[in-house]
Amino acid sequence: MSVRVVSSTPSAYQYPLLIKQLLLTPLLTAPEQEITYQGRIRYTYRTLKDRIGQLANLLAGLDVQAGQTVAMMDWDSHRYLEAFFAVPMMGAILQTVNVRLSPDQILYTLNHARADILIVNSEFFPILAEIGSRLKTVKAVVMIADDGASPVAPISTVGEYEALMAASSPDYNFPDFDENAQATTFYTTGTTGDPKGVYFSHRQLVLHTLGCAAALGGATRQGHVHREDVYMPITPMFHVHAWGFPYLATMMGLKQVYPGRYQPEVICRLIAEEKVSFSHCVPTILHMILTHPLASRTDFSGWKVLIGGSALPEAMATAAQKRGIDIFTGYGMSETCPVLSIAHLESPMLERPQEEQSVIRAKTGRPLPLVDLRIVDDAMRDVEHNGRSTGEIVVRSPWLTQGYVGSQSASEDLWAGGYLHTADIGNINPQGYLKVTDRIKDVIKTGGEWTSSLQLEDIIAKHEAVHEVAVIGVPDEKWGERPVALVILKPEHVGRITEHALRNFSAHAIEAAGVSRYGLLLHVRFVKTLAKTSIGKMNKRLMRADPDALCL
Amino acid sequence: MSVRVVSSTPSAYQYPLLIKQLLLTPLLTAPEQEITYQGRIRYTYRTLKDRIGQLANLLAGLDVQAGQTVAMMDWDSHRYLEAFFAVPMMGAILQTVNVRLSPDQILYTLNHARADILIVNSEFFPILAEIGSRLKTVKAVVMIADDGASPVAPISTVGEYEALMAASSPDYNFPDFDENAQATTFYTTGTTGDPKGVYFSHRQLVLHTLGCAAALGGATRQGHVHREDVYMPITPMFHVHAWGFPYLATMMGLKQVYPGRYQPEVICRLIAEEKVSFSHCVPTILHMILTHPLASRTDFSGWKVLIGGSALPEAMATAAQKRGIDIFTGYGMSETCPVLSIAHLESPMLERPQEEQSVIRAKTGRPLPLVDLRIVDDAMRDVEHNGRSTGEIVVRSPWLTQGYVGSQSASEDLWAGGYLHTADIGNINPQGYLKVTDRIKDVIKTGGEWTSSLQLEDIIAKHEAVHEVAVIGVPDEKWGERPVALVILKPEHVGRITEHALRNFSAHAIEAAGVSRYGLLLHVRFVKTLAKTSIGKMNKRLMRADPDALCL
Repeated sequence: MSVRVVSSTPSAYQYPLLIKQLLLTPLLTAPEQEITYQGRIRYTYRTLKDRIGQLANLLAGLDVQAGQTVAMMDWDSHRYLEAFFAVPMMGAILQTVNVRLSPDQILYTLNHARADILIVNSEFFPILAEIGSRLKTVKAVVMIADDGASPVAPISTVGEYEALMAASSPDYNFPDFDENAQATTFYTTGTTGDPKGVYFSHRQLVLHTLGCAAALGGATRQGHVHREDVYMPITPMFHVHAWGFPYLATMMGLKQVYPGRYQPEVICRLIAEEKVSFSHCVPTILHMILTHPLASRTDFSGWKVLIGGSALPEAMATAAQKRGIDIFTGYGMSETCPVLSIAHLESPMLERPQEEQSVIRAKTGRPLPLVDLRIVDDAMRDVEHNGRSTGEIVVRSPWLTQGYVGSQSASEDLWAGGYLHTADIGNINPQGYLKVTDRIKDVIKTGGEWTSSLQLEDIIAKHEAVHEVAVIGVPDEKWGERPVALVILKPEHVGRITEHALRNFSAHAIEAAGVSRYGLLLHVRFVKTLAKTSIGKMNKRLMRADPDALCL
Repeated sequence: MSVRVVSSTPSAYQYPLLIKQLLLTPLLTAPEQEITYQGRIRYTYRTLKDRIGQLANLLAGLDVQAGQTVAMMDWDSHRYLEAFFAVPMMGAILQTVNVRLSPDQILYTLNHARADILIVNSEFFPILAEIGSRLKTVKAVVMIADDGASPVAPISTVGEYEALMAASSPDYNFPDFDENAQATTFYTTGTTGDPKGVYFSHRQLVLHTLGCAAALGGATRQGHVHREDVYMPITPMFHVHAWGFPYLATMMGLKQVYPGRYQPEVICRLIAEEKVSFSHCVPTILHMILTHPLASRTDFSGWKVLIGGSALPEAMATAAQKRGIDIFTGYGMSETCPVLSIAHLESPMLERPQEEQSVIRAKTGRPLPLVDLRIVDDAMRDVEHNGRSTGEIVVRSPWLTQGYVGSQSASEDLWAGGYLHTADIGNINPQGYLKVTDRIKDVIKTGGEWTSSLQLEDIIAKHEAVHEVAVIGVPDEKWGERPVALVILKPEHVGRITEHALRNFSAHAIEAAGVSRYGLLLHVRFVKTLAKTSIGKMNKRLMRADPDALCL
């Protein structure tokens, strides 16, 4: 192909897609807009710009060079937002450390990423005490002391964040450079093996931000995110850039609220006092908020909540709607920056009863612009878009990790055949709504057929006695695998319902819903707790390893 | 700067930003959505995809290669939309020919762009008869015959568009290539000199589409463009890609309505019958529609109309609001793809009286994401953003022409100092709203001060007797220049008001509005017509050349 590539006159500016350019519009149109940390610290976008300059000068003073890595260990804060911009804008790489990993895993990720600088909240000093002497590449540690405390660091630091910021100039001339420069890195927390590092460039993050803006802005009513929204993340900023929404909120010039560590009472207070109107979280966090005693006294109406990370149970979607929450679902993963699709409801759908809406609200969405999302069989052939045929979800988009850090074989597996393999199973209906039915490894293979553990969970969760449920496959001589539901009952129902009764309830619902007939092989077991991963997802690997361990 | 450029595992797909990828989402989520030509021809996005393939095969059959140029002469139609996609997707370049230029100018642009293929509506055969023998590079002509007519072409053609399409396969494997490949070209119609060619790449058009989607989607209420809108352009598709909105409408999966040649009765009918909810046009076209007899019987309520191309008079903004039209303004030019800014109103502004809203609706907007828009003095220093200080508007964005075709000195002038010079004068207020006050060449230099011709036009247009007005500067021995208003009266006021009376009315308003006191030197002259350019803008160069020619 000999296309004609456009030529630029020598003086023309060949605009690279860099994170710094997301700041252009808000600084012109919303310089007085607010950013607050827990309602206790509050400043304007104008100050954000100054503090980004101060942080860059602070880091330059520690001899941070382009291409070096600055690691961050903090809860969701204005400081994290500053690092989201300042570090990549210098040409350095921001490592967002998952503080919920074990100390040894955290050590692994810091050494593996070759972090040069560590910015760490004093809350994590117990971790630092455990791993500090084994950090191989960190040459300087900056301490964050919330509440003006002066904690004693377990290893030598160069000083406290705010003191160092105060001593730094706000003027920093952020240079232009290659838009494919790496901006961020973080480690995915699979349920097996060492954490794997993914990485994203300036170009990828800018395009992800524009893609999300187009999808959330194009919504007619439901889930429409607009310039007068107030944004608060409830997905950690260490987890896939809080789904990239701090970049989006900044580009749009929104009021931003950072809640620190997730405490239901703080979150409920901030929603009320700061008039938060747009958040995102995993289902377990929303569950934690809505079941907290304070929640009954909090007005959630008009709060848009985008759910992702794991499947939204339809029962939770209905419960949220009853509280006035505009709940809807997105889809993505660490490898995908993350957003690939968002499930908006069209106007006629909003006229339907809440339970019917929940079916759509719990779907995982319609692809964002530029996302090439396919459902394929083992031979990479597309399955029909009839809402029933399932296959693996594979994707292309301008914002997918180009591999795993230092792992060639895993990288090639991820990208086999030129499409990123999500290892998720799903279907698409004729209106383009994606429904993720399972992780490949969570599908229950019974009698030669696949049974969706998520469908079974949805059915069981609808019973009034059920607080939480996970369905796993356990080995079975006759059927290969059979499904087992691990169920936490609501306290008031303990002792008042039998496993057998719940199983019978489910069997009727399975037949009514037209789920695979092998779902009828379901066993029900009551448990006290369910194993979770570090970010609050169900850990089915652990459950499968010993399904009896947790039984009552 | 030694940034770390991300490395891709060999199998990873390195996503280029290509126009073909704008089709991915609508084909998945809106395959049955409608596209109609005048309500007479109607098909789905699925058919659009097939016809894009057919057009590509048709052109490939004419030996069109990547890098070659396909010129189009048609009114706004589904065929034009097909060409917007098929031609660039092949790696070829679409030349959108301004059919309102003189035949000699059209000939100039076709020869200058080295057009290989010409697709031409039989309505333009009189032009073709005049220039056909002088076309230097065109090797094949495809004829478009609307209404199944079989007109006789003045030069040899290879056949009729629909017949050739019917004979072509819908299957075409559109390849990947460099995102900086040129996609389009067209010629700007300045008021002096030969038309100048600008050009845009796939990357630029994709980013422009995302930037517009983010801006129009991020609006809270006023001017919010969403997935349930019905789109109809009333800015020609030959003029800066109809401002790029056919690409946006397609990416969003909107119902699209193409009106053909702009006839007020057809436009009014389509708005009513097809439920058009989003359009864009220059003020003179809206004026033509609203003053047509049919308009009084047409319900325009809820119709979003984005105005650009020249300043929106506040009086027209108020008149449009009274008809229920959600009128607002954007800013850009041929060299800028075109959109740079859009003036959305915030919710509190919508509570104000219509006349007050008109002041904001007539401003030229807040910059789109990624647009670096500055107002600078002669030394490229930023002026204050106080809503009063004026200077030249200069810009950077990812979608600006990188020069003029074959004109190095004009290209360098355009990009002097690394910013694109718009030659427009404006100011920005503290909320980031841009107000274009004049073209550099339309500013009236009186007594050493600049007087804005647009401000004076706004004042005079508010008089009930005034149908249309243009203010120009004419030489004056004492003052250098003095302003002269050329006024077309409404028919019912002719003979009932004097030039002197209108001048006095204006003088009072000029004092009240705080316009430069040199505005008081204004003369008023009644005229029958006002000179316009080929796209309906005021041609002030012609008016200045002979201001008396048009007087009554």
